[in-house]
Amino acid sequence: MIFERIAIVGAGLIGASVALAAREAGAAGGISIYDANESVRQRARSLGFGAVFDDPEAAAAEADLVLLCVPVGAMAAAMGSVAPALKSGAIVSDVGSVKGAVIDAVRKLTPAHTFLVPGHPLAGTEHSGPDAGFAALFKGRWQIITPLDDARPEYAAAVEKLEAFWRALGAQVERMDASRHDVVLAVVSHLPHLIAFNIVAMAEDLESVTESEVVKYSASGFRDFTRIAASDPTMWRDVFLNNRDAVLEVLGRFSEDLAALQRAIRWGEGETLYALFDRARRMRREVIEAGQDTPAPNWGREN
Amino acid sequence: MIFERIAIVGAGLIGASVALAAREAGAAGGISIYDANESVRQRARSLGFGAVFDDPEAAAAEADLVLLCVPVGAMAAAMGSVAPALKSGAIVSDVGSVKGAVIDAVRKLTPAHTFLVPGHPLAGTEHSGPDAGFAALFKGRWQIITPLDDARPEYAAAVEKLEAFWRALGAQVERMDASRHDVVLAVVSHLPHLIAFNIVAMAEDLESVTESEVVKYSASGFRDFTRIAASDPTMWRDVFLNNRDAVLEVLGRFSEDLAALQRAIRWGEGETLYALFDRARRMRREVIEAGQDTPAPNWGREN
Repeated sequence: MIFERIAIVGAGLIGASVALAAREAGAAGGISIYDANESVRQRARSLGFGAVFDDPEAAAAEADLVLLCVPVGAMAAAMGSVAPALKSGAIVSDVGSVKGAVIDAVRKLTPAHTFLVPGHPLAGTEHSGPDAGFAALFKGRWQIITPLDDARPEYAAAVEKLEAFWRALGAQVERMDASRHDVVLAVVSHLPHLIAFNIVAMAEDLESVTESEVVKYSASGFRDFTRIAASDPTMWRDVFLNNRDAVLEVLGRFSEDLAALQRAIRWGEGETLYALFDRARRMRREVIEAGQDTPAPNWGREN
Repeated sequence: MIFERIAIVGAGLIGASVALAAREAGAAGGISIYDANESVRQRARSLGFGAVFDDPEAAAAEADLVLLCVPVGAMAAAMGSVAPALKSGAIVSDVGSVKGAVIDAVRKLTPAHTFLVPGHPLAGTEHSGPDAGFAALFKGRWQIITPLDDARPEYAAAVEKLEAFWRALGAQVERMDASRHDVVLAVVSHLPHLIAFNIVAMAEDLESVTESEVVKYSASGFRDFTRIAASDPTMWRDVFLNNRDAVLEVLGRFSEDLAALQRAIRWGEGETLYALFDRARRMRREVIEAGQDTPAPNWGREN
């Protein structure tokens, strides 16, 4: 057991998975749950995630770790709702996909007798809500911790305790600077999702090809994009609003490269195309070798 | 048995899979194989795809169906190499991802005593070469046939026979106009691949984030793009060179929509973002309902 009691604020895919994983791993003596949405609380109760409270302060009062599992734009409100109840020495952490903006919003609401240790589990699926949670979600996945600039030994101890908790849930822990996190995630996660949202929404209102044709023949490439484009729209709206600078920078680069590719197609520059496609192919091999994806063709889908 | 003997020209992923599927289904009495690459022929021999010939004319001489399974840019050469040997009444087909340009290149090389019936199986994986082939590749997938404008009853019979062959291999057959095919495929296949190639190649030479960071954290979205970007570069070069107009048109639309999305991020237009992401999510549900992808989270990947 890492913590006597944890409180999870927000019982969606991530919050639910933390509850299930912590119980399975025996990482928490007790688990308190709060969600601002009444029907989610109801569902959390029937799914047996832990002790579900109708009041955020009541949920957080006894907790040694309070984990904010809400969309990035709702972090400040979540923190404000539990702050008055936090006990001395409590660790507050979060699972937001953006770290700079969350730290800016939450830090000033953090009581002096508690420790704010921001984090981000690189784990999830295209599904959302309490029913989407499962205990194995964090197994083998990265948990990035972005500690504040706080030299107190008690703070260092809080960081280590939080890291031990995530390790108990099966994650690999990595420390990173918050601004570095936001740039790296803009590349590996935020831009890919943005591109996927864009192509899928575009295909829906083309005039030249009907939506039913797109759906019917989607297995020839398009369907791959629909998966990540099915992720929670509120979560992603908040990511783009709160990691704007890093996303716009990498998006600018993407558009620039795409314009060059467009030009190569227009002018029939076969060698340029071949060289670029060959380069992209090598990256896949590295991803497989790093154990970050399955080598099974089509991800092992039956068809 | 649909055909007494078929000849497959090109023993890569598709050619190899046709050979294996035709044998398993008993759709061909005999299978002849030719590949312009000697080491591929060698491999085809040891994998036992059929009777492997070192000469294209010898492979095609007895065949009732000659199936060209080479990249789009190599179709004319493949057709030229077998044309002198084609027997009277033979059906010639292909598996090219572009139909207009292939028909333009191949039609004029087709002997008058044979029937050209172009086609395109919407099936494949990110792997290529003879070892990537497997018999189940076409099961439940679409086979698009784009018949020429030929009113002879013998031609109609040839089209039907080819369709029966693909059905025997497990495919669902659909007839389509060649130019319509090229527009639809530009949307559902060519653009998605282009976008994937672009983002993966871009990530490889970013200055702000190292390649090893991209690989390490790729499971948060990026890895999905590396899969289709691992497809055969020669095949894809030829697709873009030969379906230029349709690809440039849909790419123009993609870029336009992406610019609007960029603007919404820059100006913090949360409602615009939410509405677009929500729309994209609905498309995923349609793809699942149409049986075109698995509903399993993360495609059932372990992690």
